[in-house]
Amino acid sequence: MKFTVHRDDFYLAVNSVQRATATRVIQPILANILIECESSTAPLKLSATDLDFSLQTSLNAEISIPGRTTLSAKKLSEILAKLPSKAMVQFEIDPVVQSCHISCGSSVFDMRTLPAEEFPSIPVIDSTSAIELSLPKLVQCIKQTEFAASKTDTNNILGGVFFKLSPDMLDLVSTDGSRLARRKESLEGLTLAETVTAIIPARTLQEFMKLAQTNSGEQTDTALVAIQNGQVFLSTTRFNAVSRLLDGQYPRYEQLIPRECKLQAKMNRAALTAALERTAVMANERTSIVRMTLSQGQLVLAADTPDVGNSKDMMPIHYDASEDLTIAFNFRFVLDALKVMDGDDVLMETNGALAPTLFKDADTPDAYLCLVMPVQVK
Amino acid sequence: MKFTVHRDDFYLAVNSVQRATATRVIQPILANILIECESSTAPLKLSATDLDFSLQTSLNAEISIPGRTTLSAKKLSEILAKLPSKAMVQFEIDPVVQSCHISCGSSVFDMRTLPAEEFPSIPVIDSTSAIELSLPKLVQCIKQTEFAASKTDTNNILGGVFFKLSPDMLDLVSTDGSRLARRKESLEGLTLAETVTAIIPARTLQEFMKLAQTNSGEQTDTALVAIQNGQVFLSTTRFNAVSRLLDGQYPRYEQLIPRECKLQAKMNRAALTAALERTAVMANERTSIVRMTLSQGQLVLAADTPDVGNSKDMMPIHYDASEDLTIAFNFRFVLDALKVMDGDDVLMETNGALAPTLFKDADTPDAYLCLVMPVQVK
Repeated sequence: MKFTVHRDDFYLAVNSVQRATATRVIQPILANILIECESSTAPLKLSATDLDFSLQTSLNAEISIPGRTTLSAKKLSEILAKLPSKAMVQFEIDPVVQSCHISCGSSVFDMRTLPAEEFPSIPVIDSTSAIELSLPKLVQCIKQTEFAASKTDTNNILGGVFFKLSPDMLDLVSTDGSRLARRKESLEGLTLAETVTAIIPARTLQEFMKLAQTNSGEQTDTALVAIQNGQVFLSTTRFNAVSRLLDGQYPRYEQLIPRECKLQAKMNRAALTAALERTAVMANERTSIVRMTLSQGQLVLAADTPDVGNSKDMMPIHYDASEDLTIAFNFRFVLDALKVMDGDDVLMETNGALAPTLFKDADTPDAYLCLVMPVQVK
Repeated sequence: MKFTVHRDDFYLAVNSVQRATATRVIQPILANILIECESSTAPLKLSATDLDFSLQTSLNAEISIPGRTTLSAKKLSEILAKLPSKAMVQFEIDPVVQSCHISCGSSVFDMRTLPAEEFPSIPVIDSTSAIELSLPKLVQCIKQTEFAASKTDTNNILGGVFFKLSPDMLDLVSTDGSRLARRKESLEGLTLAETVTAIIPARTLQEFMKLAQTNSGEQTDTALVAIQNGQVFLSTTRFNAVSRLLDGQYPRYEQLIPRECKLQAKMNRAALTAALERTAVMANERTSIVRMTLSQGQLVLAADTPDVGNSKDMMPIHYDASEDLTIAFNFRFVLDALKVMDGDDVLMETNGALAPTLFKDADTPDAYLCLVMPVQVK
């Protein structure tokens, strides 16, 4: 195998797929990247996998001798990082001595290879069943939900995002038991025989989102999504991600979301974020509790830690109910929700101090909600 | 005690002195900042200390009631970080309930105070004996030496920088046993009765350097330096640092530095840095060894790690000796030296593959040197 490749393209490609290599390596080959080209006119394909999650990308290269090999992702990335930008880099693999000779200007490297035959196979997509979605919309749906998945037990279904694709709607839902995020995205003209559901590991969606955001300026891209044989395929023009799904029955979240709330307030999102962050300085580091008292036209925020001090802040809001409401939250859950919204104003809706509370974008209240369970104080 | 202060000024001042608070707190008051003002026309003084190292600064404030108190540096900094830029912040201390009331716009905080009487006293400078130096020059001298002090045993004299002030010369020297850095700075018009020497903890000089670099754009500043009663005082117009000195006899470093070297080479500093960094990718992570082979007009760098791979690079140099030289270094020691030099070219001087090797700025070879001990290979 022998090829010449543009350093910048190859560095970007290696760094992209490297995210799927196994960090704690039981099988050394899982720390490697599979590099392959089928013919002198085919693109160079890179793949990495930790067995659960895989990434693939391809790029143009001058192929002198087609072939397959695997190289340490870490060392390859380190070498490319130190080579000059815009340089051409030549790779020549000697399968007999299992070594790759890399040369660029006056720099030469010899790197040990591991045989491509030992690299695990990555599930292949049947592209006829894939659904085409807008990549920016898909990224937005992921961003607004992935944070609410459980971080402690990532193999449990709560460590995943519930993904539901119906002919006219994409639904993403996540919950860790203390909060729940749900995003609905209307779709048009989808040819879908039936509704498809899956529980996708949050990590898969996070990696997909990061790659989609960093790899391109072209946010007019589309994404292909397919659910097959317990795997999800997420594909853009630049890379493919494949991940196993989480097994099990996702909680019946619809019944957790209150249909009607008798108490409603509207407030400026940036002002609420700043006031929460200020007040939170004195929140107990163990409980992270901030109390919010809503009265006509005004919100008062308060927090305290014994032996350290207390804090209080206030801001104008739209709240017309005759009864005042004092409700307490883990402030981090509220901040997480505020951070992923887009509009200037946020709606807060609840049925009482101990009832599930909804935070919504005031502009698009039907598209997105984040439910946060209040905390009982005193 | 009651005062009003500009948020930005106070935030900068708190963050500056906070660097001297004790990180692992045995006495809780060492995590606090002493805040004091003597009269309604005096500036507000802030002090922090971990008993070995202290920082002090002062700033203008509107003082309504003079007084003294201490507040948690961490909480104070967190509060100020969240308050809006350019705001005025009011502080009112109630010594009876040991509480500080902080207000800014709609935000209020109550913070527990600890009595100022319990705050350790910080040694006071007898400013008549202080020597005035150029702050940029002092910072440059520190930058070129502090990195070579031992990082493992910071209470040992090798964890310090040897500081020698003679009537016409400032000398800074540091060594960790494997390398040595020495910087000489010519002084003019210093009224100094006799030569002063001291071993200053590297951490003290690092903190001083960081503060001097971040606190100001005005690099035309001067610094006052005094050595008194086992303490060093370093003072600028913006802050004072006080630190205990390290006790003991500094190694007789002069005899370690070769007076004459029969092998000399001159090379481009940026090119050597880049070639070393590239080659080092394949250096053994345990030993960090890179081999350098000097021959007429050319330097070849090489490294290898068994079972991973090897690297080789070359670059043109000025080297006229008839004998080739192969010498090996911990590449990190060479990079550290190259990083703190200023000139385009660097001189490399040695008497052989196992002899101490000097790296010097080609423009100012008498002002600065970094000695690196080679490593024996094979």
